[in-house]
Amino acid sequence: MSIESTIVKMATEAKAAAKKMAKCSTEKKNEALIKIAHRIEQNASEIKKENAKDLSRGKEMGLSDAMIERLTVKDSTIKSMAEGLREVAQLDDPVGSMGRTWQRPNGLQVSKMRIPLGVIGIIYESRPNVTVDAAGLCLKAGNAVMLRGGSEALHSNQILASCISQALQETGLPERAAQVVPLRDREAINILLKQEESIDLIIPRGGEGLIRFVVENSKIPVLKHYKGVCHVYVDDDADLNMAENICFNAKVHRPGVCNAMETMLVHKKVAKKFLSPMAKSFESAGVQLRGCQETSKILPHIAKASEEDWPAEYLDLILAVKVVEDMDQAISHMAMYGSCHTEAIVTSDYSKARRFIREVDSSVVIVNASTRFNDGGQLGLGAEIGISTSKLHAFGPMGLEELTTTKFVVLGEGQIRE
Amino acid sequence: MSIESTIVKMATEAKAAAKKMAKCSTEKKNEALIKIAHRIEQNASEIKKENAKDLSRGKEMGLSDAMIERLTVKDSTIKSMAEGLREVAQLDDPVGSMGRTWQRPNGLQVSKMRIPLGVIGIIYESRPNVTVDAAGLCLKAGNAVMLRGGSEALHSNQILASCISQALQETGLPERAAQVVPLRDREAINILLKQEESIDLIIPRGGEGLIRFVVENSKIPVLKHYKGVCHVYVDDDADLNMAENICFNAKVHRPGVCNAMETMLVHKKVAKKFLSPMAKSFESAGVQLRGCQETSKILPHIAKASEEDWPAEYLDLILAVKVVEDMDQAISHMAMYGSCHTEAIVTSDYSKARRFIREVDSSVVIVNASTRFNDGGQLGLGAEIGISTSKLHAFGPMGLEELTTTKFVVLGEGQIRE
Repeated sequence: MSIESTIVKMATEAKAAAKKMAKCSTEKKNEALIKIAHRIEQNASEIKKENAKDLSRGKEMGLSDAMIERLTVKDSTIKSMAEGLREVAQLDDPVGSMGRTWQRPNGLQVSKMRIPLGVIGIIYESRPNVTVDAAGLCLKAGNAVMLRGGSEALHSNQILASCISQALQETGLPERAAQVVPLRDREAINILLKQEESIDLIIPRGGEGLIRFVVENSKIPVLKHYKGVCHVYVDDDADLNMAENICFNAKVHRPGVCNAMETMLVHKKVAKKFLSPMAKSFESAGVQLRGCQETSKILPHIAKASEEDWPAEYLDLILAVKVVEDMDQAISHMAMYGSCHTEAIVTSDYSKARRFIREVDSSVVIVNASTRFNDGGQLGLGAEIGISTSKLHAFGPMGLEELTTTKFVVLGEGQIRE
Repeated sequence: MSIESTIVKMATEAKAAAKKMAKCSTEKKNEALIKIAHRIEQNASEIKKENAKDLSRGKEMGLSDAMIERLTVKDSTIKSMAEGLREVAQLDDPVGSMGRTWQRPNGLQVSKMRIPLGVIGIIYESRPNVTVDAAGLCLKAGNAVMLRGGSEALHSNQILASCISQALQETGLPERAAQVVPLRDREAINILLKQEESIDLIIPRGGEGLIRFVVENSKIPVLKHYKGVCHVYVDDDADLNMAENICFNAKVHRPGVCNAMETMLVHKKVAKKFLSPMAKSFESAGVQLRGCQETSKILPHIAKASEEDWPAEYLDLILAVKVVEDMDQAISHMAMYGSCHTEAIVTSDYSKARRFIREVDSSVVIVNASTRFNDGGQLGLGAEIGISTSKLHAFGPMGLEELTTTKFVVLGEGQIRE
C-alpha cells in the first residue's frame, strides 16, 4: 500500500473509532487505561527487546548520546508509563460535564456540554513514553489518536501501540482509537497533515524545527509551543531573599526545560544589593551569567550580553541579566523578547502585582513564585499534553479539558421564533 | 506603496493598537462604542453618499438585484448599526473576568483570567453593516480588528471605518484598532492571510467559496462556518402538534438563513399521521417538499428526493423529508449528511431526549424547540460574530467570550519547586 493510502485508511478508521469513543462511559475508558498499564508491565521484556532494536539501529546511525538516552526504555520508563496511565484514570472525565446553565426569557434552558474533539494527531520525536502518555490523555478525553513518533523509535512505538490496541479491544473499545503510523518516511507527516476531513487537531511535540515544519504544512489546526524564553522581574519592592530563592529555583532546578528562567530583570534601585549575592549563588551552581551594561558595572567579571542573548532559549546553565529602570521597562522587555510562555514578578507591592498580572501577555503570569510552576501537574490540571504559547483554543498548559470542546444544549417545551 | 507593504504596515499597526486595547478599561471601550454609534448617525448622509458610489459602480458591473439589496445602506441600516453598537456597549466585558480559582497543596492560588485574543482579521462580502457590527464586538472584547470587506462595498466600508477611527481617537483609544483594508485587489486577502506574526485569528463571513479560499490559504487560525444543513427529527413519542409548529417555524420563519431546517426526519410509526397535515401547512406556505420512497407512499404528489438532496443547504422554501426506522437511523443520517450546525428532536421520551443530546455531534443540539434558536442573541450571548461549525476554540455561536482567550494567573508567597 502506498504511504498515502496507508495514512488515509488510518485516518478514516480513526474517525470511525472517535465516534465510538465519544459515546463511551468514563468507567469503560478508565478500565481501558488500567488494562493498558497492566499490559505494558506484563510485556516489559518484549518492549525492551523492541527498544533494543531501535537503540542498535540508532547507534549505527550515529545518534548522539543524548538522543540515545531519550530513546532508551528502562524499567523505570515502563513503571512511569504505567503509573501515568493509572493517574489519568483517576482524573475527572471532562466529557459530559456542563458549566453554567441559564434560562432565556422564553423558558429555553441553555447549557454548554463538554464533548471530545474527535481525532487528535500527535507528532513527536525520540521519547517512546510520549506514545503512551499522549494516548492515555487523548483516550480519557474521549478522542481517537494518531501517533507519529520519531522514525528512530518505530519498533518501540509499535509494540507500545499494540499493547494499547489489545487493551482497548479487550475492554470492548475500538482498537483503532489509538494507532501508531508504521512508516519511517517523512512524507507520512506531510500526508497526515492534509487529512483535515478526518483529523481535528494536530499537536507537535519536539524541537522548534519540527514544530515550524508542522505549522507550515498543516491544513489541520495546530496547537503549538515554540519555545520558553521565561523571565523573572525582581522589583524594587521585592523581598530580596525570596527573589533569590525564586530566581535560583527558576534557573537551576531543571535548566533544560521550557519553564526555566532564561533572562532575569532587576530593578535598578535594588540591582547592586541583589546582584552580588545572587551572582555568587548562581556561580556556585555553575551558572554562566551574561549581563547588560549596567549589570557589568556591578558584576565586572561576568560576560557581556549581546543582542542575541535577549531572545535566547538557552535550556542550559546560562542566564541573561538586565537592569531595568522600572516595571514598565521590564514588561516592555518581556513583550519584545519573550515567547508568551511564563513570566514572574517578585514584589511586595500590591498594585504593581495587580498591574503585572493584567499587563503581561504570557500563558502563565506568576507573582512571587518560580516559573517552574508552569506545568499541568503543578497547576492542578492533572497531567498535560503540552504547553500552548498561541492563544486560540488553549493558552498555557493543556490538560484533559483542553482536549475537549463544548456544544450548546438547548431544552424547550415547543418554543419557536416569533 | 505596494499591496504587500500596505498590508504589512496595517497589520503591524494593528498589533501595536491591540496591545493598547488589551489594557483598556471597560468604561473607555463602552464610551468609544457609543461615540461610534453617534458619529455614524451624525454622518448618515455622507455614508449614504459614499454608499451611492458603490451602488452605481455595482450596477455598472452588473451585480444581481440581491447583491445590490445587500449592498444598500438605508436609514434603517444606519439605525440598526448604531443600535447594535449601543447594545454591545451594554454587554458584560469578558476581559479580566476569572472563572474558578483553586488552591494547590503548596498554597499557590491558581485562576484563569480572560484576555483579548489580539488582532482579529474579518474577511467578508457585500453587507457594509458587517464592518460596524464586527468592529464593535472585536473592540469590546479588547482586540484590534482588520476588516476586509467585499471590493464592491469599499466606499461604504471606508467611511464607516473613518467614523470608527475618529471615535476611537476622540475617546483616547488607538485609532488603528479598527482598520478597513483600502484595496480592491484579491491579492490583498492572500497577503493578509500570511501575517501570522501580527494577526491572531481570521474569521471569514460569506459564501462557501470565500470560506474555502480563506481556509486553503491562511497561515493564521481560522474560525469557520461552512454551511447549515439542519435537521429536525420527529420521534414516535413526539407531541405531533408541537412537532408541526416546530418544523413549520424551522423551515418557514426565515428560510434563507443557516439555522433553517433543510431536512425533516420522521419516525415511521407516526409518519402517516404526521406527514399529511404537515405537508398541507408547508404547501400552503409555498414549501416544495422532496421525499424519500416511504414519504412518497404517504404523499404521492410530492417530488422524489435524490441523493443530492440529503446534504443540500437549500436556503430556500424547499425541504427534504425522510421516514426513518428509529432514532438511531435519524442520528446516523445527521452524522452522514449534516454539517455539525444545528439538530433538533421533538419527543416526549426522557431517555431518548437524553441520548439525542449526548450522541448528536452538532454545535447546537435542541430538544423540543426550533432550530432557529441557534443564534448568539437567542441563546443569550448578546450578539454574535458568526457560528463556528468546527470544534477548535469555539463550536456554535460566537459572542464576546469567544473573541477572548484565558491566561493562567498564579499567586504565591515565595513558592519554589522542590
